[in-house]
Amino acid sequence: MRRGITINSDMGEGLGLHSFGNDSAIMAHVDLANVACGAHAGDPEVMRQTVAEAASRGVAVGAHPGLPDLVGFGRREMKLLPEEVESLILAQVGALTAFLRREGAQLSHIKPHGSLYGMLSRDADLMRAAAGVAALYGVPMLGLAGTAHESVCKELGVEFVGELYVDLDYDADGKLLILRRPHPTDPAKAADRVRRVLTDGVVLAQDGTELRIDFTSICVHSDAPGSPDVAQAVREVLAETDSA
Amino acid sequence: MRRGITINSDMGEGLGLHSFGNDSAIMAHVDLANVACGAHAGDPEVMRQTVAEAASRGVAVGAHPGLPDLVGFGRREMKLLPEEVESLILAQVGALTAFLRREGAQLSHIKPHGSLYGMLSRDADLMRAAAGVAALYGVPMLGLAGTAHESVCKELGVEFVGELYVDLDYDADGKLLILRRPHPTDPAKAADRVRRVLTDGVVLAQDGTELRIDFTSICVHSDAPGSPDVAQAVREVLAETDSA
Amino acid sequence: MRRGITINSDMGEGLGLHSFGNDSAIMAHVDLANVACGAHAGDPEVMRQTVAEAASRGVAVGAHPGLPDLVGFGRREMKLLPEEVESLILAQVGALTAFLRREGAQLSHIKPHGSLYGMLSRDADLMRAAAGVAALYGVPMLGLAGTAHESVCKELGVEFVGELYVDLDYDADGKLLILRRPHPTDPAKAADRVRRVLTDGVVLAQDGTELRIDFTSICVHSDAPGSPDVAQAVREVLAETDSA
Amino acid sequence: MRRGITINSDMGEGLGLHSFGNDSAIMAHVDLANVACGAHAGDPEVMRQTVAEAASRGVAVGAHPGLPDLVGFGRREMKLLPEEVESLILAQVGALTAFLRREGAQLSHIKPHGSLYGMLSRDADLMRAAAGVAALYGVPMLGLAGTAHESVCKELGVEFVGELYVDLDYDADGKLLILRRPHPTDPAKAADRVRRVLTDGVVLAQDGTELRIDFTSICVHSDAPGSPDVAQAVREVLAETDSA
Repeated sequence: MRRGITINSDMGEGLGLHSFGNDSAIMAHVDLANVACGAHAGDPEVMRQTVAEAASRGVAVGAHPGLPDLVGFGRREMKLLPEEVESLILAQVGALTAFLRREGAQLSHIKPHGSLYGMLSRDADLMRAAAGVAALYGVPMLGLAGTAHESVCKELGVEFVGELYVDLDYDADGKLLILRRPHPTDPAKAADRVRRVLTDGVVLAQDGTELRIDFTSICVHSDAPGSPDVAQAVREVLAETDSA
Repeated sequence: MRRGITINSDMGEGLGLHSFGNDSAIMAHVDLANVACGAHAGDPEVMRQTVAEAASRGVAVGAHPGLPDLVGFGRREMKLLPEEVESLILAQVGALTAFLRREGAQLSHIKPHGSLYGMLSRDADLMRAAAGVAALYGVPMLGLAGTAHESVCKELGVEFVGELYVDLDYDADGKLLILRRPHPTDPAKAADRVRRVLTDGVVLAQDGTELRIDFTSICVHSDAPGSPDVAQAVREVLAETDSA
Repeated sequence: MRRGITINSDMGEGLGLHSFGNDSAIMAHVDLANVACGAHAGDPEVMRQTVAEAASRGVAVGAHPGLPDLVGFGRREMKLLPEEVESLILAQVGALTAFLRREGAQLSHIKPHGSLYGMLSRDADLMRAAAGVAALYGVPMLGLAGTAHESVCKELGVEFVGELYVDLDYDADGKLLILRRPHPTDPAKAADRVRRVLTDGVVLAQDGTELRIDFTSICVHSDAPGSPDVAQAVREVLAETDSA
Repeated sequence: MRRGITINSDMGEGLGLHSFGNDSAIMAHVDLANVACGAHAGDPEVMRQTVAEAASRGVAVGAHPGLPDLVGFGRREMKLLPEEVESLILAQVGALTAFLRREGAQLSHIKPHGSLYGMLSRDADLMRAAAGVAALYGVPMLGLAGTAHESVCKELGVEFVGELYVDLDYDADGKLLILRRPHPTDPAKAADRVRRVLTDGVVLAQDGTELRIDFTSICVHSDAPGSPDVAQAVREVLAETDSA
């Protein structure tokens, strides 16, 4: 992982003929690609191509494991046991490492996807199962500071990378307001959010509440219209403030 | 891989509640477990349990990648491109390596499953894609001597392990007669086949033709009724002839 | 549906090579087969064979739709929207009707499977989506009296058939204690439960609490060891008390 | 089915978040929608929405069953037995009928998708299994004249609707040159092909060979860039020549 603040983006979320997101365009602006591993999206061919492109462009590749639900895109919560979570993440991370090995690259990190991300932020037992996989591979996990993501990583000695979101709103409690379908984000607004948080440490919730978000990586979703522009705007703020 | 003649068996081919084969019983008698990786059978939980049991009992674990067809159990041929074959095998082998890493174990070998095994034996381009994965992981491939399995491994410098089957019949050309459903094999007949081939190098085809089969591993299927007895009978012949 | 008290059983829950339950043996003793429709189990071939056997033996065939989760066998709760529940049940019921049409038979009823059954018992909005499908086909729904199963059916004018379980325990509140794996039930105990409830209307919960369960159908699971004996024992009680 | 020459288009081939094709735009110009049924594309939600839209706009809805391969989009041939083909098509047609029933609409026709379409055109045994489903539902099948599509329909007394393709090329033998990815078609060229075939009965193969194609329906694919313009251009030719 690079020092300073990184930009990460979920990638490789197509399936067969169905392309998804703006992976190629956004790759120019990000440090970390969170690559789908076949459960919520991303069949083996898509994984191969995504990992190859990221590796050739110097983007670090992490695993983006999700719930086993292609139709629901991993966004429909499922009741799972901790051992099921562990096995699901092991299988997906392992699959990704084969494509990394093919490129002579290393696994960079793990960031859970969609409802799994949310489930792990709230349930320490499930998060322990997930963090155990990160420990096994010796890589950091991306997640939300102040949730089980962070506390369990600390408990298990797994490096934790807190995320800031610039294309999702926060509620007054700092919880992300996740939408089923992506919506466009104004690049200028995303840049403003980053500029402000770097200046005075504050992120505004949807209702104007001032939040303190602990982060060292900024997530830009690849599937929203105009997302490469958002990533570029964020990159420019990081450059001007010398935070990257 | 152990020296001498080994016994291998396909394992971990259950799915969720559906158990399959006699894995626990047969594990006492085999050297190599070919573990299903989720495409034709074997969900993440089954993989975890199978790899854990094999590792704890000192059985070497190889990948048993198959076609992506749970309903058809990987036994319905699909027209695939070489790059699709490569990606499918990469994803499955990679998934398995995560469970091996969890046990502190190493990938032992790769043996393709079902129709994929047959496709690779006949199509050198597809076999090159498969053997490339074995080369990437530095492990041998199990297969049929005298087919593309063997010639492509030699071409690419991949170690090749020829197999003898004791619970399937051969036709006069040495081709395996594969059944959709397993049938019971008389352990004494299996033992006789092994004894004879170790003595004078001959295997009898279904019609009595004398075949020469080049092999260093004997496959015993785990899903036929009485398969542990077959494995035990073969093990005893190997012990008495000091071939193991 | 026959008059009087019927016996129903979940069937066709195999998948490809994986057979499941004792369908053929238990079919001799049941009135209603709840046939899996491909989401939690039961691929098209299994559906064809199960419907054909039920039709030829005079067993009425209903749909047994489940969550789309083959690995979890429909037993891992998923957060779904009402329209998703409606669509999932429509697709599954529709699929089943094709096999019924092939046999010249009619859809008899709908009984949701596993976690979907539980979700619908607790969530009236989801249950409305499900009951709408039953209304569309003009068939009754099987479920638990005193839950949303019953109240929503009444609200929508859908015929409701309450179930008694003889191979699962009830807690003191009348809730079923569902197990992930089937356990054997003593046929004599199942017969006793039926005899008692027919005599004095009481079912004993696990802790001895006397429950009043409203039912006109008795469910016997097909996948527990000895389930055909349980079904036969229940049938004999119904015959002796003239309740069938 | 309307009298005269119809325009048909494959629709509802999205999956979850992955939309596919220009269904809404092209629906204004077609008579028949061939709706995906969940095997190669089209989950239950997509089916519900597609059937609802088609029904509300007066477009006749037929089933578009495919091979069970979401990743391959039904375009990777699989070796199937006739009974497997029958069961696959039954399950898919049945699923679609549930959504039709919800709209108070009737099944209009069956048109197999992708590799299944090709397999049925060449293998009369498989085609008999498919045509049996059309007979069961009393609907016509769309297909290629001069292939097993046509001969088997005649043999079994199933109405056959021959298709002309305007966005795929034919080889000198009249065989379609199917591409893995859609390419744009010039609407003027498509219109020319239709005008010419209506005038003098001739379609030009890719190499200039004059072909005689027997047809009463014209297929316009919905997923190529500009496909609604192609459909509109074809519609105008049919109107001007009074063939619709």
